[in-house]
Amino acid sequence: MDGMDTPTDAKVRLHELVLENGRSASPYVWRIRYALAHKGVPFESAPIGFTEIPKVFDGRFKTVPVIEHGNTIMAESWDIADYLERAFPGQPPLFSGPAEHAMVRLMDTWFSAEILRRMFRLYVLDVHNAARPEDRPYFRQSREGYLKGTSLEEFTADRAAILPALRDALMPLRSQLSRYPFLGGTAPNYADYIALGAFHWVASVSTLPLLAHGDDTLRKWLDAGFELYGGLGLDSRMKPLFE
Amino acid sequence: MDGMDTPTDAKVRLHELVLENGRSASPYVWRIRYALAHKGVPFESAPIGFTEIPKVFDGRFKTVPVIEHGNTIMAESWDIADYLERAFPGQPPLFSGPAEHAMVRLMDTWFSAEILRRMFRLYVLDVHNAARPEDRPYFRQSREGYLKGTSLEEFTADRAAILPALRDALMPLRSQLSRYPFLGGTAPNYADYIALGAFHWVASVSTLPLLAHGDDTLRKWLDAGFELYGGLGLDSRMKPLFE
Repeated sequence: MDGMDTPTDAKVRLHELVLENGRSASPYVWRIRYALAHKGVPFESAPIGFTEIPKVFDGRFKTVPVIEHGNTIMAESWDIADYLERAFPGQPPLFSGPAEHAMVRLMDTWFSAEILRRMFRLYVLDVHNAARPEDRPYFRQSREGYLKGTSLEEFTADRAAILPALRDALMPLRSQLSRYPFLGGTAPNYADYIALGAFHWVASVSTLPLLAHGDDTLRKWLDAGFELYGGLGLDSRMKPLFE
Repeated sequence: MDGMDTPTDAKVRLHELVLENGRSASPYVWRIRYALAHKGVPFESAPIGFTEIPKVFDGRFKTVPVIEHGNTIMAESWDIADYLERAFPGQPPLFSGPAEHAMVRLMDTWFSAEILRRMFRLYVLDVHNAARPEDRPYFRQSREGYLKGTSLEEFTADRAAILPALRDALMPLRSQLSRYPFLGGTAPNYADYIALGAFHWVASVSTLPLLAHGDDTLRKWLDAGFELYGGLGLDSRMKPLFE
């Protein structure tokens, strides 16, 4: 399972969630897209819809990303990132060492609690509406289950009221980016990929611009982040992130 | 100024804020106390009160910590931490490299915005009451100035209502500490010292326990953190952090 027997020249296949327009939307998949690009590991994309996730791999995985590499099949973005470090030791490392790794995990828990959670609050109906038509009933049912029966429409009716708190919660990013070009310092690191992945998710579906027009510190970093690795993040299907 | 001409055997003097009971209270001073212990650099303490800070060093510094080392005198905890790395290159490093350093700075901005800010909201009157009597009028005047004239008593009257949000904001620490013994991973790093320093500040003055009785994940880490470096953080004058 840990892939140590897999030759490093075996092809990597990335199973990723797609919307009706074909765009990869999951913030967790985007982390791995960036991680693969950072390491210079090419991959083949295997697009799937929300409805298919529990069906492929005999129900073994409930979430994407899932990667296949030789005999290895695995889910969970952190497990995959750690796997990529072990499986491609000759490629540029994602983490300089265990202390950076631990710090990025801490960043991830903060970011998930204060920012991703609020993004879900704002954009869950937009995700539904951008999903492939055949995925929408499943998406609605599963998410309304988390919401204990509240409809996506009710849940997001007052969503604009959340915007100020979400913009405030992004302050630590602005503070860091007023000091360094990337969250990771002079070069992008996995913390950048975590945060960029969330903005990709929003930009895939948004009908309500997340950021204020004058938020230049974030704008500069987003522009640079989308242009990384030959413009990996650039996509004409992206919705505006700025008012 | 950058101390490169200072012999590493010159004595370090740490100017630190003290309360009426003599205890060092500033969360920023505690970062440097831990940083010095981490590096194995002995220091001499120079206790001062709130009123004295603007008076010493000809008004050059408005905050503690201030360190003196040979011909170097400097304030600001991050500048001091970076200085200690340069001035004691043969001692254990605080940071494994620039990526960890950048990640800890990001942690610091998050921690200051979501946690320290709420701690100030809860404990500013307790700090006043624990200060040396001769420092209290100055402390009140300066802090009520930040609060645009609201008295410390008015500002903290409903403080218990803030506790749930503060305890929630600590979730990323709990998540990290359910995975690792320290925020920095298997060994404590400067992120631990930042967070421990904040709890030292609260424990120096608190008349309202910050943490719920059953918060065992934080309790275990706090106990381990206070015992670091020969029990640097243990002090019988500390107030209970737990209900």
